[in-house]
Amino acid sequence: MNALSPTLLDPKPAPSDKALVPFVSVETMMRLVHRVGLEAMLRDLAEAIAEAFRRWESFDKTARIPAHSAEGVIELMPTADGELYGFKYVNGHPRNMKAGLQTVTAFGLLADMHTGYPVLLSEMTLLTALRTAAMSALAARHLAPEGARVMAMIGNGAQSEFQAVAFKAICGIEEVRLHDIDPLATAKCARNLDGHGLRVVACGSAEEAILGAQVITTATADKRLATILTDNMVGAGVHINAVGGDSPGKTELARDILLRAEIFVEFPPQTRVEGEIQQLAPDHPVTELWEVLAGRKPGRTGAAQVTLFDSVGFAVEDFAALAYVLGKARETGLHDRLDLIADPDDPRDLFGMLMRAHP
Amino acid sequence: MNALSPTLLDPKPAPSDKALVPFVSVETMMRLVHRVGLEAMLRDLAEAIAEAFRRWESFDKTARIPAHSAEGVIELMPTADGELYGFKYVNGHPRNMKAGLQTVTAFGLLADMHTGYPVLLSEMTLLTALRTAAMSALAARHLAPEGARVMAMIGNGAQSEFQAVAFKAICGIEEVRLHDIDPLATAKCARNLDGHGLRVVACGSAEEAILGAQVITTATADKRLATILTDNMVGAGVHINAVGGDSPGKTELARDILLRAEIFVEFPPQTRVEGEIQQLAPDHPVTELWEVLAGRKPGRTGAAQVTLFDSVGFAVEDFAALAYVLGKARETGLHDRLDLIADPDDPRDLFGMLMRAHP
Repeated sequence: MNALSPTLLDPKPAPSDKALVPFVSVETMMRLVHRVGLEAMLRDLAEAIAEAFRRWESFDKTARIPAHSAEGVIELMPTADGELYGFKYVNGHPRNMKAGLQTVTAFGLLADMHTGYPVLLSEMTLLTALRTAAMSALAARHLAPEGARVMAMIGNGAQSEFQAVAFKAICGIEEVRLHDIDPLATAKCARNLDGHGLRVVACGSAEEAILGAQVITTATADKRLATILTDNMVGAGVHINAVGGDSPGKTELARDILLRAEIFVEFPPQTRVEGEIQQLAPDHPVTELWEVLAGRKPGRTGAAQVTLFDSVGFAVEDFAALAYVLGKARETGLHDRLDLIADPDDPRDLFGMLMRAHP
Repeated sequence: MNALSPTLLDPKPAPSDKALVPFVSVETMMRLVHRVGLEAMLRDLAEAIAEAFRRWESFDKTARIPAHSAEGVIELMPTADGELYGFKYVNGHPRNMKAGLQTVTAFGLLADMHTGYPVLLSEMTLLTALRTAAMSALAARHLAPEGARVMAMIGNGAQSEFQAVAFKAICGIEEVRLHDIDPLATAKCARNLDGHGLRVVACGSAEEAILGAQVITTATADKRLATILTDNMVGAGVHINAVGGDSPGKTELARDILLRAEIFVEFPPQTRVEGEIQQLAPDHPVTELWEVLAGRKPGRTGAAQVTLFDSVGFAVEDFAALAYVLGKARETGLHDRLDLIADPDDPRDLFGMLMRAHP
């Protein structure tokens, strides 16, 4: 059985237009990224997310719906804005890497709320990596100290290069200082960033990586309470972009850092459970990032502040990314079409459609 | 753009096996039904659902997650048994029919809980119609009066023929008496059932349809509190299979019928909100169907009882149907494979995979 079995090549009678759902495969997503350009796409995604965050109140919001197993979690992340409905399927299985599998894979869907018909099915493993990096850089544009040019990148796994390129494209970062407990990961990250216009410095310790950095990004994958950053490592005037802590029992920062930081989050009911702030009291003050993007609350207010974006990823970001991809897929023609929805001539005649298909 | 765009025909480098998710399209599902045989597949699905219901306690259960709009609802229905995770996307848009669209469309997914990787993506518009009918007939096997041979089928839309054939294949129903407020729907249903081994009687009223029927199935689609059956229409010794009332504010039966019926439901927290029993007090006694299937509680206990299966559809049924389809798709080779999951050689090297795909 290969990818081109007869049923896909020769569907007769051909399903009607209504029955065919635009589909962006992994291969197609890669083509789309190269067609648009990586940095341009990261900037576009940041703008798409900013636009969605500015109209935050128009979205139905709910914490993601998890299914836990011993090895990891599978989550559904739905949201809707009255016109479009979107959801993402995403897993997080830290031990997958040892079996040669992705820690995080994802796909997503958009549907027309007026009919319930899907309008896009898309891979989202790549798209999640892109939108997560775009979200981080978008937040940093409002939270990092002015003139920030150096970023420490702690954790050099699958997300790290996307973060580095996004911070270059969106925040003007010029130097990234890499550290990972696995030197092979750092070497891979440095190799991949070659030619992307960044000064790349491989560092033997987290302490070395944060030397001179105005932005500290943590993106490690262990599913446990880890302390990637201790209190004495974080000086004044730094922005921390904490990407890795994103499920109950998984954090990266020492609690003391949180106590002296201005904390910005996506959706508090979700971040309180999954983010770094699961270490704090449930009423510890945080600022919702959408309020900053909508101009209702300030971002960074002083050069000496420690700011923290406690990133866990929220459905509205995926919605914005999918809506952007739908537009680009239509504009470029880069998509397939899937026979996912039954569409009998008479909508009440599903049975007749089935019977007429008798070989 | 057609269904065979170059990205699907010529994916290079070819995604690895891990990246390809088995996919059952509408076309493929129709082939599968004809390969297995319609009645055999309905019996198989009933057995698959019964097996899942007998181990009900092994499933994570949650009420479905809805997104409402003025026109209808989109729902996610997840469940998991520790080994496999499944969810269904389904919409219900009663006004769709007038626009030539399906009222209900659906697709679903199964994933390996140990890795989070999807193992099946499948159309579920047809599969939902099949499993709903199989579920109804399975319930009736335990609840209908002994020797029931005549069923009234009120509401002759997309679900009606599936119900009729399932009750023939699973419960020994020999005669179906059709009624719909739209005579064209009844004519379509009667035409479709021709040759399926049932005596089919078209009736001008619901009263006429229930004459001599031991089973009354209601499957109407209006999204409102309707009274398809009034109290005086339902005599002793009847089983009511109420399929159409399946969302808040949508019911089919007069409340007085409920008060004198033994009521059987799938998952009470969901049925209390969506089913006929939304008309009753929240503590009105009901029996969970899984307890009957597991032999813990009796089904029908007397010839004169009025029994009611207040069917709304539950995730475990979809899970069982998807698992059955996965087995059949593997056995018959009837499936395509979708490039849905990114799979770099080094799982940490998602960025490198993307960059190497540069045209």
